[in-house]
Amino acid sequence: MNLLARSPRPLTGQMMDMPLMISSLLVHAARHAADTEVVSKRVEGDVHRYTYKDAELRARKLAQALARLGCEPGDRVGTLAWNGYRHFEIYFGSSGSQLVCHTINPRLFPEQIAWIASDAADRVLCFDLNFLPLVEKLAAQLPSVEHFVLLTDRAHMPAQTSIDKLLCYDDLVEAEDGNYAWPEFDENTASSICYTSGTTGHPKGAVYSHRSTLLHTYGLSMPDAMGVSSRDVILPVVPMFHVNAWGVPYAAPMIGAKLVFPGPHLDGKSLYEMMEAERVSFSAGVPTVWLGLITYAKQHKLKFSSLRRTVIGGSACPPAMMRTLEDDFGVEVIHAWGMTEMSPLGTLSRLKAKHESLDADAKHRILEKQGKVIFGVDMAILDDDGKPLPWNGKDSGNLVVRGPWVIRSYFQREESPLVEVDGRQWFPTGDVAAIDPDAYMQITDRSKDVIKSGGEWISSIELENIAMAHPAVHEAAAIACHHPKWDERPLMVIVRKPDASLTAAELLQFFEGRIAKWQIPDDVVFVDELPHTATGKIQKLKLREQFKEHRLPTSP
Amino acid sequence: MNLLARSPRPLTGQMMDMPLMISSLLVHAARHAADTEVVSKRVEGDVHRYTYKDAELRARKLAQALARLGCEPGDRVGTLAWNGYRHFEIYFGSSGSQLVCHTINPRLFPEQIAWIASDAADRVLCFDLNFLPLVEKLAAQLPSVEHFVLLTDRAHMPAQTSIDKLLCYDDLVEAEDGNYAWPEFDENTASSICYTSGTTGHPKGAVYSHRSTLLHTYGLSMPDAMGVSSRDVILPVVPMFHVNAWGVPYAAPMIGAKLVFPGPHLDGKSLYEMMEAERVSFSAGVPTVWLGLITYAKQHKLKFSSLRRTVIGGSACPPAMMRTLEDDFGVEVIHAWGMTEMSPLGTLSRLKAKHESLDADAKHRILEKQGKVIFGVDMAILDDDGKPLPWNGKDSGNLVVRGPWVIRSYFQREESPLVEVDGRQWFPTGDVAAIDPDAYMQITDRSKDVIKSGGEWISSIELENIAMAHPAVHEAAAIACHHPKWDERPLMVIVRKPDASLTAAELLQFFEGRIAKWQIPDDVVFVDELPHTATGKIQKLKLREQFKEHRLPTSP
Repeated sequence: MNLLARSPRPLTGQMMDMPLMISSLLVHAARHAADTEVVSKRVEGDVHRYTYKDAELRARKLAQALARLGCEPGDRVGTLAWNGYRHFEIYFGSSGSQLVCHTINPRLFPEQIAWIASDAADRVLCFDLNFLPLVEKLAAQLPSVEHFVLLTDRAHMPAQTSIDKLLCYDDLVEAEDGNYAWPEFDENTASSICYTSGTTGHPKGAVYSHRSTLLHTYGLSMPDAMGVSSRDVILPVVPMFHVNAWGVPYAAPMIGAKLVFPGPHLDGKSLYEMMEAERVSFSAGVPTVWLGLITYAKQHKLKFSSLRRTVIGGSACPPAMMRTLEDDFGVEVIHAWGMTEMSPLGTLSRLKAKHESLDADAKHRILEKQGKVIFGVDMAILDDDGKPLPWNGKDSGNLVVRGPWVIRSYFQREESPLVEVDGRQWFPTGDVAAIDPDAYMQITDRSKDVIKSGGEWISSIELENIAMAHPAVHEAAAIACHHPKWDERPLMVIVRKPDASLTAAELLQFFEGRIAKWQIPDDVVFVDELPHTATGKIQKLKLREQFKEHRLPTSP
Repeated sequence: MNLLARSPRPLTGQMMDMPLMISSLLVHAARHAADTEVVSKRVEGDVHRYTYKDAELRARKLAQALARLGCEPGDRVGTLAWNGYRHFEIYFGSSGSQLVCHTINPRLFPEQIAWIASDAADRVLCFDLNFLPLVEKLAAQLPSVEHFVLLTDRAHMPAQTSIDKLLCYDDLVEAEDGNYAWPEFDENTASSICYTSGTTGHPKGAVYSHRSTLLHTYGLSMPDAMGVSSRDVILPVVPMFHVNAWGVPYAAPMIGAKLVFPGPHLDGKSLYEMMEAERVSFSAGVPTVWLGLITYAKQHKLKFSSLRRTVIGGSACPPAMMRTLEDDFGVEVIHAWGMTEMSPLGTLSRLKAKHESLDADAKHRILEKQGKVIFGVDMAILDDDGKPLPWNGKDSGNLVVRGPWVIRSYFQREESPLVEVDGRQWFPTGDVAAIDPDAYMQITDRSKDVIKSGGEWISSIELENIAMAHPAVHEAAAIACHHPKWDERPLMVIVRKPDASLTAAELLQFFEGRIAKWQIPDDVVFVDELPHTATGKIQKLKLREQFKEHRLPTSP
């Protein structure tokens, strides 16, 4: 021991140097949950079941097969597929062999699918049997795709197809011997790409890494997030083409939980029967899916015998749905918020120890918010000058986030989407939110929809919720209208219920006492219908365009 | 879009580049659990309480103070301290400012403490009030220590001390303004050092990094590990000088849970009262601590009103204690195994979904094992030739582990402790274990104590457990004795109970039917007492030396 010989500065840790690899998730499951099942409702119609040990071997064979097709590190493997074991194998076989898994949403317009597959330059495209007609139509528009792989076995291959040299997935996999060692490489290597749907302009790709995926998977498994364990049986309703099914296909092997894939049938009956048959304890999906499930269960007076918890995200969960699931069905609802650019999980609504003694209503008011961040993600709300706003539950501002599973840039786009606050880079979510003193975040609007009146912000969502509560209102939109003094003031655009009568003055009167006086809209216009997007959202941009010249009665 | 211009290979992920930093744990808690309390029973006798927001500010001030004392990146800050808020501040103030937190076990012999502090070349030594006499005695043997800091306030500083320029911790902290930004640096930088107790030779230092600590913290928080959340109130009984209190001081701010530090009084009464007063729901400690707590609660016919779960590790938890805590007190016991070289968590005993339908006894038999690995750690059992053994629950072999929170080498030791198996590096734990087909590990012996008979291994622990069940046996040790044909055969060394009579033949008879015939010891010797270490363990090395020349009756 020589006290004078100082160690190098700073001192380096002496821990094993092991990169965080996606393949290690499946290897872990194959070793430590070898006989745990992965059950899939197949597009072919039957139920397929095997174990994590089987899945890992097949993923290794797939890695061999993709290499045999000529794929090299960094190449993209596109998928058009439902939740099933073959899609699961692609997640690991591609990323694990240093290729990039690119899941494409088959519900997009065909030209969007072609655009996205070409932007990502997918070299291989793997697709489910029911997407064959779609791919046949698109093939000519997919110049980057060298190999078309149908996700089925030899028996289900079509007798005839317009696709040249259509490959059979099972044939490819079964031709290999599995004598393959998962490579270790830089954990910052790209593992998968998901494109944002993009309401304006072309979709943009978020490029996840092995590191970001593993950190996100640790984070989402924690008790304050999804809180999943090896005692759970997990059915992800959220599609694997929708931000990697919120990370569930990675979390299940990490914790060694049985995984149940519902395939293409996401109606109430199919889901209910699968949940009961496989003793599902945990699920995750968007509100509309739960609506279908609840409706089916109520119609047939059914209860869930094993389902205990579900994560609901994608869009805000209506409070009534949360209550129904909890009170009528004994299913705990975990309200979640995130986005493609966040891998996707940002916040989940979970109580703290201090809330233990609150009554049920007070607890619900907390749980209806979008919730607290998982450790790893941080958030802030900014005013229009980029200055942080206080967390008082009242002030709302532009929500920005940062963390190791948040993107810093989009695929093949040079411009940085980030903003700098106090010397740190943040990603602007495009949402407007308030954060309360306990750090629970609540989305109040989309940034582009908020109405900025004399430096104060008015939530269009809040105005619409009030208008919708009026018995004569069928649909309502609140938009910003130019005002010479206040810059912007709210204008309500209303569709009356059939045969209902309602005047502008009556509706404005209805706002009195329901919102601060200065937030009451300046005017109301009645229309026959509102413009909607393909997914049913009101096109506010179009409305603002339409009423650009509208003169408010309050203008001087 | 240019399809011909291929992306660089392999493709790099486009996620935010954020190193995993220990400081970010406390910053997260200060932002997202700002008013959550950290409560400490102080060495001074009173109870101190403040919030994570307060703790983070004080940790920043401490970072400033340590820099003012001349500490530079990589310098070690030693501690001799109980579990309390000042010790907690040192964890973050030192590691967070790129110094290395070196916790020293004050229960070691004084010369060991001096040796360890000098081996680590601690530049600062922070210690609790009750260790002042110890440090006064040791100061001359600590040539590397430039600053001695007493962890107390001005009012409790001694009027006289032999330590030159003894500093007051609270004075140091309160002199700073907190205007300090936590630096970001390479996540592989050393964050803390813990020394193994080392039964032979000098203690050796495990050097953790920011990365290994954060990954370990994610891992231990998961439902299959400690499963802690913001709904918990956590009291770590395991000392902060014992492998960083198993990571609890990092996990609590990560999840925003209230933290309760018990200070120096770990007797049943003190712990019980603290748990009840602060509504503790989760705890962690070694079996002896729980023995004290159970004894006190039973004597006074007390129940726990808030405690629900506890992790027990450090040494194997007696099954009877698990049953008592669960059946009599409603406290779930999570049996854990790890070691200093593993940060320390390796396995925890938690059921899988497949065990749901087992009866209570069958569940207990699983939970009494050391358990399953947390994702991140992998394990294997090897025969004497380094070949992996099957996971059948019967074969036992040398347990080896690997993972990003397992050491690759010791502080300032050049030789690698690792072994290579199938092209990968593993850390040999020194334990002998069996792993069952469900991946539950059970320690059967220490490597150096196992008896190797004709290529087969006999567990000394198993033989001792059988002998101890004989009513006439007070204490028993099974050791390997040389045998010309079998290489080694078991010899029992027995201390009879006072006034009990027992012959060798009677004891050997007692083994019949309780263990395989070939595992029954070859001979028994009776002694007046067994040699013990300072911590009460039987010194088997000494026994083997003593009976080196013993001739077994089975020798040809």
